[in-house]
Amino acid sequence: MSLITPALAGKLAGLQSSAIRDLLKLTARAEVISLAGGLPDAALMPRERIAAASATALASSGVLQYTESPGWPALREVVAARESARIGRTVPVDEVFVTHGSQQALSLLAEVLLDPGALVIVEDPAYVGALQVFRAAGARIVAVPLDRDGLRLDVLEELLAAGERPAVVHTVSNFHNPGGVTLVPERRRRLAELAEAYGFWVIEDDPYGELWFDQPAPAPVAAYSAQVIRLSSVSKILAPALRVGWMVAPDRVCRAVELLKQGADLCGSALTHQIATELLTDTDWLAAHVDSVRAAYGARARALVGAVRATFGDRVHCTDATGGMFVWADFTDGTDTTTLLPAALEAGVAYVPGAAFAVSDAYRNSLRLCFTTSDEPTLTEAVTRLARAAALG
Amino acid sequence: MSLITPALAGKLAGLQSSAIRDLLKLTARAEVISLAGGLPDAALMPRERIAAASATALASSGVLQYTESPGWPALREVVAARESARIGRTVPVDEVFVTHGSQQALSLLAEVLLDPGALVIVEDPAYVGALQVFRAAGARIVAVPLDRDGLRLDVLEELLAAGERPAVVHTVSNFHNPGGVTLVPERRRRLAELAEAYGFWVIEDDPYGELWFDQPAPAPVAAYSAQVIRLSSVSKILAPALRVGWMVAPDRVCRAVELLKQGADLCGSALTHQIATELLTDTDWLAAHVDSVRAAYGARARALVGAVRATFGDRVHCTDATGGMFVWADFTDGTDTTTLLPAALEAGVAYVPGAAFAVSDAYRNSLRLCFTTSDEPTLTEAVTRLARAAALG
Repeated sequence: MSLITPALAGKLAGLQSSAIRDLLKLTARAEVISLAGGLPDAALMPRERIAAASATALASSGVLQYTESPGWPALREVVAARESARIGRTVPVDEVFVTHGSQQALSLLAEVLLDPGALVIVEDPAYVGALQVFRAAGARIVAVPLDRDGLRLDVLEELLAAGERPAVVHTVSNFHNPGGVTLVPERRRRLAELAEAYGFWVIEDDPYGELWFDQPAPAPVAAYSAQVIRLSSVSKILAPALRVGWMVAPDRVCRAVELLKQGADLCGSALTHQIATELLTDTDWLAAHVDSVRAAYGARARALVGAVRATFGDRVHCTDATGGMFVWADFTDGTDTTTLLPAALEAGVAYVPGAAFAVSDAYRNSLRLCFTTSDEPTLTEAVTRLARAAALG
Repeated sequence: MSLITPALAGKLAGLQSSAIRDLLKLTARAEVISLAGGLPDAALMPRERIAAASATALASSGVLQYTESPGWPALREVVAARESARIGRTVPVDEVFVTHGSQQALSLLAEVLLDPGALVIVEDPAYVGALQVFRAAGARIVAVPLDRDGLRLDVLEELLAAGERPAVVHTVSNFHNPGGVTLVPERRRRLAELAEAYGFWVIEDDPYGELWFDQPAPAPVAAYSAQVIRLSSVSKILAPALRVGWMVAPDRVCRAVELLKQGADLCGSALTHQIATELLTDTDWLAAHVDSVRAAYGARARALVGAVRATFGDRVHCTDATGGMFVWADFTDGTDTTTLLPAALEAGVAYVPGAAFAVSDAYRNSLRLCFTTSDEPTLTEAVTRLARAAALG
C-alpha cells in the first residue's frame, strides 16, 4: 500500500512544514520575547463588535445553511464597493470571489492558471505561503529580488528579454512580508504594462494595504490593468477566524475558480460571511477601528525601528516600516542570523532568520522582525537582548 | 495569455458545475415543491443554541486568532472521543484532522493518496462531490453498482480477480446519497478484509450515519481495519455554516494532509470550531437535539415512501428510507425521468433525474427525492403532482 504517492512525495520535497511554524513551537516559552510570529494582535481585534454581529446574524434564518460557492451575496457586494474605490473602476459583483482566507484564493488560482512546469516569478525574499502553493502546483519558480522600492523590475525585464515567459508574477505589493517594502507607483504601472505586453497574470497579494502608518498605500497594480488579479482579506484588519478573503478577477477566472471551490470545500460559512458583511458595511465604525489598529502598529513599528537603529547603528540596516506587520533587517558585518538564533533564544528574543524566506539569494545576514504583538517597551527590550546575543556571537 | 490552462481544461471537461446546482436554479419558483435539493432543514438547526455558544466563545480571547491547521485542539478531542465510541477503539487525537466540511477532507485526501491515473472505485449511482474530486485529481474511475445491501462486493471482487488494483475505494456507507441504501455488516467486514489483502484505502464517507430512523447504523467499516479512513461532519446534525468536518486517519496520512492544508487555506475558523466544540461536548443536549432531527426526518421519509407506494404501486420501486435525507426510486415501466422533468416542473414538483448521478449505468428510469425540507402533507402533494406528470408522460 502506498502511504504517500510518488507525486505527493515530489510536492512535499520542496514543502517542508513551514519553517516559521516549526520555529514558533520552539519559541513559545514565556520568557522569550517573540518577534518571530506573523500574527496580528488578538487584543486589537474587535471582539465585542463581532459578538454583536454574530448575534444579529444568528437572529435570522438562512445563516446556518450552505451558501453559494462564490460567497454570501451581500458580502460580495460590499467587497465589490470597497475594491471599486480602491482600484478606481467599478468592479462588478461577478468579479468578486470570496475564499477561505486569501490563501485559498492563491491555492485555487494556482490550479486555474498553472500547468505543471509553468513559470512563476516570485519575490525574493518570498511570502512562504505563496512558495508552498506554487511548489505544490509543480510550477518552475524563478525569484526576482526586492530592493527598497519593491520588486526589481529591471531584473524581471532582463528575464523577459532573455526569453522567459512567465504564466504568473506574484507580488505582495504593500508592506511586504517578509521584506517590509512597498512597490513604488512607477513600477506598478510598468509591471502592468509588461503583463499586457507579454501576456502573463499578475497576482497582487495585498493583505496589508490598509495597515499604512503615515500615508495610504499607492493605487494598486490592479488599477493599471485587468490582467492583475487582486487578493485581500479581513484577517489583518478584523480577525483571521472569520476566514474571509477574496479575489478580484475577470469573470472567466472566477467561474473556473468556482468549479474548483465546489470540489475543494463546497462553500464558505454563511455565519462568518454575514459577520464580515456587517462590519465592512458599517463604514464609520470600520474607519475608526482600522485607524486604531494603524495607530497601535505604527507606534510599535517606530519603537522597534528606533531601537534597532539606536542600538546597532551602521551594523544593521532595517526597513522603515511604513505599514504592515514586519521589519526586515540586514547585519552589515557578516553576522549569520541562523547561527545567531540559539544565542538569541538564550538571551530571550526570537526572530525568523532570513534564510527561511530565501528562494535564490541566501539572506544569511538577514532577519524578519514582527512588531504587532508586543508593546513598545517590550520591543525595546527585545532589541537590547538581540544586541546582547550579537555581541557574544 | 492562457485563460484556462490545458491541464485545467482537462479537469473541467468531466466536472461541469454540478448538474444539481444548475437544476436548483430552475426549481426555485415558489409554486414548485422541490424534492430536488440536498440540503438539511434550516428550521431544525439549533440556531439559539449556536448563538449562545457563539457568545460564550466570543467572551474569551484567542477565539479570533489563526488556529492550528489540524483544528482547534478541544474540537479534535471531542471528535476523538465520539469516534472512539463509534469505531470501537481508542482514536488518538493525532488521528483526527478537522477540515472545512468533509468535502475538504475528500479533496485533500485525493491529493495525498492519488497519483494521476490511479484507480479509484466509486459507487454507482455516485455522490457527485466525490466524483468531482476524483476527476479533478486525474484518477481513473471505475464504478461498482449498489444494490439494496449497498456496494456490490461481488463486482468489486471480480475487478480485483481480473487484476484491477485500486488505490482507493470510496463508499457512502450509511443512507447513501443518492442511493438511499446502507452497506450491510457482512459486506463491511469483507470490504475491510479486501482492503488489507489488496493494499487499498477505503474512504468511508459518513455524513448521514447519525440520522437513523428505526435503529442505529451498523458499526462503521473503520471498525474492521485501520486502512479505512472515516469522514464525517456536523453539517447534517448541527449546521453546514459551521464548516466543520473531519477525517479519522492514520497519523502519517494526517501529517501529509496537514502540509497540504497549510497551502490550501492555512487553518479553519477558531470561532466555528469552538462553537462546534461546545455543542458536541454537551452530550445530553446533543442527544436530544439529534433525536428531534431524526424524528422529524423519519416522519417525512415515511410520508414520502408511503405516498409513492400508495400512488404508484408496482410502477415505481423505492428505497425504504431507514435514515439520511434521500429516497431513490425507479420507474419499472420505462419512464425516462430526464424526459419527464419538464412535465413534472409544469405540474409543480422537482426532483433530480438519476442520470445526474450515473457513472457507468445510465439510471434513466431513476430519480432522487429529498424529504428533509418539506412537511408530510407537502410531500404527499408532491407525489400527487408527480403522478399527474407521469400520467401525462
